[in-house]
Amino acid sequence: MSDAKALTAKAAELGKLAVRMTTAAGSGHPSSALSLAHLVTHLMYEKMRYDPADPWSLAADRLVLSEGHAVPMVYAAYADLGGAIGRDPARARPLTPDDVDTLRENASELDGHPNPAEGFPFFDAATGSLGMGLSVAAGLALAARLDNGPRQVYCLIGDGEAREGQIWEAFDFVVDHGLTTVCAILNANGEGQAADVSAQQSAEALAAKARAFGWDVVEIDGHDPAAVKQALEDFPRPDKPLAIVARTIKGWGVDGLQNGNWHGKPLPKSELDTAYASLDRAKAGVDTETFAAKPTAPASLTVERRDPREVEWDGLAAAAHEYGLGGAFDKGKLATRRAYGVALAEAGKHVPQLVVLDGDVSNSTFTNIFAKAHSTRFFECKIAEQNMVSTAAGFAAAGFIPFANSFGKFLARAYDQIELAAISRANVKLVGSHSGISLAADGPSQMSVADVAFFRSFATARADDRESPVCWTFQPADAFAAYACTRQMLALRGMCYMRTHRPDVPMIYDAETTFEPRGLHTHGTGTDLAIITAGFMVHVAREAMALLEKQGIRATLVDLYCLPTDAARLREVMARTGRALVVEDNYGGGLAAEVAGIATMGNPFRVSALHVTRIPKSARSEEAILEQCGVGARQIADHARSLLASTV
Amino acid sequence: MSDAKALTAKAAELGKLAVRMTTAAGSGHPSSALSLAHLVTHLMYEKMRYDPADPWSLAADRLVLSEGHAVPMVYAAYADLGGAIGRDPARARPLTPDDVDTLRENASELDGHPNPAEGFPFFDAATGSLGMGLSVAAGLALAARLDNGPRQVYCLIGDGEAREGQIWEAFDFVVDHGLTTVCAILNANGEGQAADVSAQQSAEALAAKARAFGWDVVEIDGHDPAAVKQALEDFPRPDKPLAIVARTIKGWGVDGLQNGNWHGKPLPKSELDTAYASLDRAKAGVDTETFAAKPTAPASLTVERRDPREVEWDGLAAAAHEYGLGGAFDKGKLATRRAYGVALAEAGKHVPQLVVLDGDVSNSTFTNIFAKAHSTRFFECKIAEQNMVSTAAGFAAAGFIPFANSFGKFLARAYDQIELAAISRANVKLVGSHSGISLAADGPSQMSVADVAFFRSFATARADDRESPVCWTFQPADAFAAYACTRQMLALRGMCYMRTHRPDVPMIYDAETTFEPRGLHTHGTGTDLAIITAGFMVHVAREAMALLEKQGIRATLVDLYCLPTDAARLREVMARTGRALVVEDNYGGGLAAEVAGIATMGNPFRVSALHVTRIPKSARSEEAILEQCGVGARQIADHARSLLASTV
Repeated sequence: MSDAKALTAKAAELGKLAVRMTTAAGSGHPSSALSLAHLVTHLMYEKMRYDPADPWSLAADRLVLSEGHAVPMVYAAYADLGGAIGRDPARARPLTPDDVDTLRENASELDGHPNPAEGFPFFDAATGSLGMGLSVAAGLALAARLDNGPRQVYCLIGDGEAREGQIWEAFDFVVDHGLTTVCAILNANGEGQAADVSAQQSAEALAAKARAFGWDVVEIDGHDPAAVKQALEDFPRPDKPLAIVARTIKGWGVDGLQNGNWHGKPLPKSELDTAYASLDRAKAGVDTETFAAKPTAPASLTVERRDPREVEWDGLAAAAHEYGLGGAFDKGKLATRRAYGVALAEAGKHVPQLVVLDGDVSNSTFTNIFAKAHSTRFFECKIAEQNMVSTAAGFAAAGFIPFANSFGKFLARAYDQIELAAISRANVKLVGSHSGISLAADGPSQMSVADVAFFRSFATARADDRESPVCWTFQPADAFAAYACTRQMLALRGMCYMRTHRPDVPMIYDAETTFEPRGLHTHGTGTDLAIITAGFMVHVAREAMALLEKQGIRATLVDLYCLPTDAARLREVMARTGRALVVEDNYGGGLAAEVAGIATMGNPFRVSALHVTRIPKSARSEEAILEQCGVGARQIADHARSLLASTV
Repeated sequence: MSDAKALTAKAAELGKLAVRMTTAAGSGHPSSALSLAHLVTHLMYEKMRYDPADPWSLAADRLVLSEGHAVPMVYAAYADLGGAIGRDPARARPLTPDDVDTLRENASELDGHPNPAEGFPFFDAATGSLGMGLSVAAGLALAARLDNGPRQVYCLIGDGEAREGQIWEAFDFVVDHGLTTVCAILNANGEGQAADVSAQQSAEALAAKARAFGWDVVEIDGHDPAAVKQALEDFPRPDKPLAIVARTIKGWGVDGLQNGNWHGKPLPKSELDTAYASLDRAKAGVDTETFAAKPTAPASLTVERRDPREVEWDGLAAAAHEYGLGGAFDKGKLATRRAYGVALAEAGKHVPQLVVLDGDVSNSTFTNIFAKAHSTRFFECKIAEQNMVSTAAGFAAAGFIPFANSFGKFLARAYDQIELAAISRANVKLVGSHSGISLAADGPSQMSVADVAFFRSFATARADDRESPVCWTFQPADAFAAYACTRQMLALRGMCYMRTHRPDVPMIYDAETTFEPRGLHTHGTGTDLAIITAGFMVHVAREAMALLEKQGIRATLVDLYCLPTDAARLREVMARTGRALVVEDNYGGGLAAEVAGIATMGNPFRVSALHVTRIPKSARSEEAILEQCGVGARQIADHARSLLASTV
C-alpha cells in the first residue's frame, strides 16, 4: 500500500464529512472544500507540527485559511483528529465527527467561515472577506521570530482570491522581511463564484507573478499526494519564501459537484449517497485506516510577555527629554502625534510584546521615535495599509500587542481588514495621525472626516461576554492626554483607535490628569450651555469660550476624549446646562451621534451640532480650513449665541 | 538645437515654477514633482492630443496623476499652456504662471493634491490617497471604448505607491479588458517618504512584475528626452497594454533637493535663487523658447447620453416578467436584490450611459440580469473591490453612470476609494447586497454592520454649492421600493449607496408608491409610539407591531428608506407619538444617530434604539441571528412595552 493511496483514501473520507456538514447546514461551500482535500490532509496530518489537543501553543505550526469559505475540509480533518474547541483551554473539549452536523448553527463553534473567537482556536484570525490571510500569516511568522520559536506558517489562498491586491502586498512584505517560514499555497481550481477565474489568475499566471515578486515557486497537481508531499518537503527553503501553485478540481471526488456552477451550494440530502459512493470510488478500495499519520507536537516554548497594567512608566516630561522632544515639551507646545511617539518608545522599554507597524509615514506619525529606540520591534510595512492591519492581527493572535499606524485617512484603506480583526477579537491598536481637517494644506485626500463615525459604530456593540465595546476610540486633546491614552490602549484588551493631530498644541492637562476608559473632562463651570468636543477641537472650543465670556456667556467645556463615554456623567453636565453644543472636526455621526443618543435617553435634552458640513479642500492655515468647513472659533461662538437666543 | 535639449530646457523652466509654488504655499512636494519633469513635459506638450482650453472634451487624451503629491509639475505645465480652470466651461478662465503662487490657498483652484471638483478640470478624479490612479485610467479607457472615442489615457504612478495592492488589481483588470489604450508610467525615483523604497519596488522589480502581469514593458531613463519620446512613440501597441518604467531623480535639476530627505518639504524662500540657478544649469544654455511644442486638439466626438429623469420605464411587474422573475413576482415575494437587478436591466434599455460593475458576485447581487440584457455595458471586475470602485469613478468622469456592486461587507474594502470618488464629486452609485445580518448562515465576515454609520456620515455634509448631501443612502424594504430607489439613484446627481438584502420578502408597497429623496413612509396611525426602521427590518418591525397590537399597544411604523431624511416630517410623527423606538440590523450610528440628531433639535423627544449589540456569528435562520443580536420581533415588542411602562 503506497502512502499516496492511503492519503487519497483519507482525503476522500474527510471529503464525505465536508459534504455531509454543508448538507446538514443547508449552506456552505463543499466544492471549494473538496478542492483542498489532499492539501489539507497532508498539512494537518503529516506536515504541520502541532498537537490538536493544544491549538493554543505558541510553538505550533499554523494554518491560515485565507479562502475562508473552503473551511469544511479543515473542520472535517480537525473533527477526525479530535482537535480541541472552545473559547479557552479551561473550557475546551475535543471536536467529534458528529459535531460537524452543527455547522453554522447559532450555538456551534463551527462558524460559516473561520472564526477563532467563536471557539475554534485552531485558527488565528477570522477570514472570509478575501485576500487577508497571507498578511495574517506574515504577522504570525514575525511573532515567532521575535519569540525565537520554531513556528512555520502555511497559508491557503484561492486563485480567484489572488485577484485581491492585498495578496500581492503580502507577497512583497514577506520578501522584505525575509520570512522564509511562510509558505503560500495557491489553490488553482480555476473556478470563481460567478464564473471561471480570469486567465490572469491561471496557475501559470500566478506562478509567474509569484516568481516576479521574488518567491521560489513550485507548480504541482494538488490531488497528487506524492507531488504535494515533495513540494512541502522542500519547505522551508533557506533563501526565499516558497509559493506552491496547486492545480486542483473544484468538487474533487464528487462527480455531481463538478458539472455546472456549484459554488457555495450544498448538495441536497437526496444526493448524499451518490456523493459518498463517488468518494468511495476515489478511495480505490483502500482502507482509510491504512493512513495512520498523526501530527506531532513541537517542543514547548517560553515566551516573554508582561501585563501592561502592571509596569511602571516614566511620565511624559522625562520621556520627552529622553527621546529628544524635551525642548518642545519645555516650551509647552507639543502635537498629540509627537507625545504618542514618545509614549510608544517609553512603553517599549517595559512591555516586550509591544510591536509597532507603520506604512512609510513614521516621520509623520512619529513612530520613528519607537523605531529608533526598539528597532527589532518596529516593522516598516511601506505603502500598503491593508497588509499592515492584517499583519497586526497575526501578531495579536500570537500574544503581541501591535500598534498599526498611518494617517487617519489612510487607515480607511483597511476598514475591511479592521473589521475582520474586530471579528477575531484581535488585540490590535490603530492610530491615525493628521486626522480631521487641521492638517489644512494637503487637502481632503489626506483628511480623515468619516473615521469617528465609522469607529464609533464599533463602540455601540460589545465584544461578546466582555463589557468592553468592539472598539474604543480615543481623541486626546494635548500631549499629556495622548501619552495617557496610549497607556490606556495598551492596558485595554481588544481593539482601540486613537486619533492624533498634526498641529502642535499647548498643554492643557498635566501629569496628574487621568484618562480612563469612558471618561471625560470638564473645563469651567458655566451653566449657560455645554460645549462638547474632543481632540484638536478642544483648543478651538476654548477660543470660542473666551469670545463668549467677553459677551457674558459662560459655558462648560466637555472634553469627550473617549468613545463610548459615560452616559450618566454626560447627562449630569447637560442637566446643569440645559443645552448642549457639540463641535467636531469631522463629518457628523461621531461625537454628535454619541451625545444625541445619550441626550434622548430618559428625559431628553436639546442638542445642537457643528461639524464639517462640506467636503474640505486645501487651505494654508488651520483657521482658514476650520472657517470654510463651518467649525471655526468665531462660528462656534456665534452658533452658541444664537442657540441661547432661540426660544424654540 | 536638438529637440531633446529644448525639452530639457522647458522641463527645467517648469521645474522653477514647481519649486516656486511650493515655496509660496509653504508646503508641498517639489522633489517628487521634479522627478516627473521630462515625463510631464513630453506628455503635456507633445504626446497628448488635447486642447488646454477645453479640458472637458470627451475626445481628448487624459492624464491621471496617481501619485497626486507630485502635482506641482502638472500645475506648472498647465499654467505655462494657459489651460482652462474653473468649475464648468461657462466660468472658465486660463491659468497663468502667476496663478501658481496661490497653490493650496483656500480660494485657489490649485488644491494640494489633484482635485477636479475645486476647479481643475484637466484632472478626472481626486488622487492623493495612493494607488488608485490606474483604476481610474481603466474606467476612462472603457468609457472611451463605449463612446467610440479616440481617447488614450496616461497614468503616472510612483514606485513607492506601487506597493499598494490596488495597482496590481488594475494591472489585471486592464489586461482582462484588453485596454491597450492605457499607458502606465512607473516613476522609479527610488525614494519614499520615510526612507528609500523597498527593493521590491526597484525599477527592475517593477518591470518584472508588470511583465508577469501580462504587459509590455519598456525601461528608460526618465530624464532622457529621446528615451521618453521613443518609449511613448510606440504607444499604443496592438496586443498588450504598455508599462514604462522610468528611472528618475527625486529633486531632478535642483542640487539642494537631492541630499537628505526632502519628501514633502518646500525650499525656504532664501534658497530659491540657488534652486533657480541650479535649474538654469540644467538648461545648459538652451533658450526655453526653442521648445515650441504645443498640444493639438483631437477631432470632436458625439456621444450618446440621456437624462435619466426624462426617460419612461416599464413598472416592476412588466419588467419582472420580462427578465425571468415573473413567477416570484406573482407569488408576491421578491428580495430587494432581485428587484434591483430587474431595475438595472430595465434602466439599461433607456439610459445608454448606464454601466454596471460587479466583483464576481453577480449571481448574488443579481446584476447578472443586467449582464445578460446589456452585456457590452457590464464589467466583470473579479474579486478586487478597490479597483472596481475607482474604475467606476473613471467612468463617471467621462459622463457615464456607473453602478458598482458587491456584498455590502465587501464594499468596505473600498471605503477609501469611495471617499476619493466623493471628493471628486463622482456620479458613482454603490449597491451592497446581503447587508445587515439577515444573510445569517455565512456569518460575520460577510455581513455589513458598520455600513450605515459610515455612509450616513457622508449624508451630514454637502457636496459644495449643491444642496444634495455628499452621499445619499437608500434602504428599500421591498421589491417595489428597491425598483423605485434604483430609479431615484439614477436621477440624482452624485454619489448614492443602496443597501439590499438577501431574503425574499413580501411586498408591502405597490407600483403607485413613490420614493423620493429625503422621503419616508408611515404605516399605521398608532399614537402609543413610533417604531422607526428601514430595509429588511421593516418586516421584522411589522411582526413586532402585530404582537404589540394583541396587547392593545398601537404604534406608527416609519420606514426611513432614505438618509438624510426630512427632519420636519419625522418630528411631526414623533410629536404625535411622543416616544420613538429605532430598530436597525447594523451597529449603532446609522438610523438611530439620524433620528436622535433630529429628536434633539428644538424641543427634544425621547428616543430608544435597538441595534446589533454584539459581533454577529453564523445562524441557520434569520430569526436566530436577529434574536442573538438583540433585534428579533419579540425583542422589539418587549422593548417597546417596557419603554411605555417606564416613567423616567
